[in-house]
Amino acid sequence: MTRVLIIGGGGMVGQKLAKRLITNGLPGYADLEITLFDMTFPEKGVAGPAFKTGNLSEAGVAYDLVSDRPDIVFHLAAIVSGESETNFSKGWDINMMSMWHLLEAFRNAYDKSDGTYVPRIVFTSSIAVFGGPFPEKIDDEFLSAPQTSYGAQKAISELMLSDFSRKGYVDGVSLRLPTICVRPGKANLAASSFFSGIIREPLNGQEAILPVDASVRHWHASPRTAAGFLAHAAKLDTTSLNGRRALNLPGLSCTVEEQIEALRRICGQDVVDLIKVKHDPAIIKIVEGWPRNFNPKRAVSLGFTAETSFDEIIHTYIAEDLPKTPA
Amino acid sequence: MTRVLIIGGGGMVGQKLAKRLITNGLPGYADLEITLFDMTFPEKGVAGPAFKTGNLSEAGVAYDLVSDRPDIVFHLAAIVSGESETNFSKGWDINMMSMWHLLEAFRNAYDKSDGTYVPRIVFTSSIAVFGGPFPEKIDDEFLSAPQTSYGAQKAISELMLSDFSRKGYVDGVSLRLPTICVRPGKANLAASSFFSGIIREPLNGQEAILPVDASVRHWHASPRTAAGFLAHAAKLDTTSLNGRRALNLPGLSCTVEEQIEALRRICGQDVVDLIKVKHDPAIIKIVEGWPRNFNPKRAVSLGFTAETSFDEIIHTYIAEDLPKTPA
Repeated sequence: MTRVLIIGGGGMVGQKLAKRLITNGLPGYADLEITLFDMTFPEKGVAGPAFKTGNLSEAGVAYDLVSDRPDIVFHLAAIVSGESETNFSKGWDINMMSMWHLLEAFRNAYDKSDGTYVPRIVFTSSIAVFGGPFPEKIDDEFLSAPQTSYGAQKAISELMLSDFSRKGYVDGVSLRLPTICVRPGKANLAASSFFSGIIREPLNGQEAILPVDASVRHWHASPRTAAGFLAHAAKLDTTSLNGRRALNLPGLSCTVEEQIEALRRICGQDVVDLIKVKHDPAIIKIVEGWPRNFNPKRAVSLGFTAETSFDEIIHTYIAEDLPKTPA
Repeated sequence: MTRVLIIGGGGMVGQKLAKRLITNGLPGYADLEITLFDMTFPEKGVAGPAFKTGNLSEAGVAYDLVSDRPDIVFHLAAIVSGESETNFSKGWDINMMSMWHLLEAFRNAYDKSDGTYVPRIVFTSSIAVFGGPFPEKIDDEFLSAPQTSYGAQKAISELMLSDFSRKGYVDGVSLRLPTICVRPGKANLAASSFFSGIIREPLNGQEAILPVDASVRHWHASPRTAAGFLAHAAKLDTTSLNGRRALNLPGLSCTVEEQIEALRRICGQDVVDLIKVKHDPAIIKIVEGWPRNFNPKRAVSLGFTAETSFDEIIHTYIAEDLPKTPA
């Protein structure tokens, strides 16, 4: 039996991952026993795994989670970028200190087990660890100089996970996820929300606002691909990482115009007409500071795969997340 | 009056810096009031400044230091590389958590002052934030992938200082110092100790062991230059850093053979004959993982300067630190 713990299992990616593991399992690991941990869970969420609720930043919670000796831990819990910027203390507390407490709890379990208990930890980092100015394509040796608190907290968590892994207390991998698109559900307050909104809303028969120029280029992967990255990282041979345990993942670099072209090809001009351009200087400024393209050689050579066209990303949304009856 | 606080003021570089500030002042800042903070101070150390002793990792100590509202803070205190590797908890506690507590104390003072108190913080980071494989020369955009706990703790402290600075709570700069050579005093247990030892010991009429091949290349700066870097960073216009507040500093890239040639030029073959080659596989392995050369364009353009020959570095040691009566 393999014990799997998904911290942040109530979130969108956590739910996708849980569904995937229940449906497909993890090749090479028989009989998964899955536990989801989060502060809250969606009402109509995935069924089947065990659930635990709590706040990782509270004393003892990390030790409690570790006491079950999970074999594979997915750590997805985070305060998102926008909130980390407006609530400085909360961001550092959840995004950095929780990682520290978790790793210390694992180190304690390692000691208690005389070094026999070394779980795989898959941590969702982000391309927010990068800050401009950028080269045309960001390669695997480009510096991490984040320009948000969220990015700094993710970069710090990567460094902690890497060093605890180097010492042998855990066996960790950090995945720098592309922007996840098309996100199901409602628009949120993230500056990146429109990348999903301009596809999702028209597909649901609703208008969407495009706040930036159509020439804006960005780096995308679907929720299905994100879940695939996580599952792939769970069984990666980490010795092949040669001590560099943070990976830039593959994604699709495309412009907003290319997103819209794909939507037109799949659903026609009427659907595209629901996109209304209304430039927002604040969002334009934020998005200017974001990475546009990568050359993720290492992750590709390690077998991580992503979409190669935005058409694919739209088809994934339609297949997995488009409500049967448009809202 | 300008209040200067040197955290780690009892150490070798802290003492050099204090002497420099007492002698030269800081151009543009009249009337320095200098306080040195450390756990202990050398018996025959610098005289003149105020002294405070304490442990930065203890509760309240950071708040106490900050309550004096220093204008310029040099944060040099650290558990060295070797001890951070053998005493994992102590390294993280002193090298990471102390930085966190210090920054939180400064943020508290910022809030209390209604945002009027924003000290300059100059933090001594290290080329240990880098891990191999390396390019021929490390440029300003090369990733930080440390392969020691010390390097991870320094890299994390840089990220924290950068984000607290971006938010305006402090105005920080992290300096990635080259290996400091020739260190005065006795050999220590650091793997890098021989770089100083093969110069210092012969100059003092004593034998020195060279544990690596003479072809080994490394990145050096003198203690005097290190103090100069710190003083320069205290008055840097940080807006010119464009949000990238960690700097690779200039240094001298040379081989051990070039070090020895310089010693021969200055002191003759008899002195060089005191160097005995005795290869140490453990040290050879560690040193293989270290940076050899840099292209520190940004720091050079910001006015940081270092030695351009190893002869200069030896002359600096002779002028500043060689005991009048050889030991």
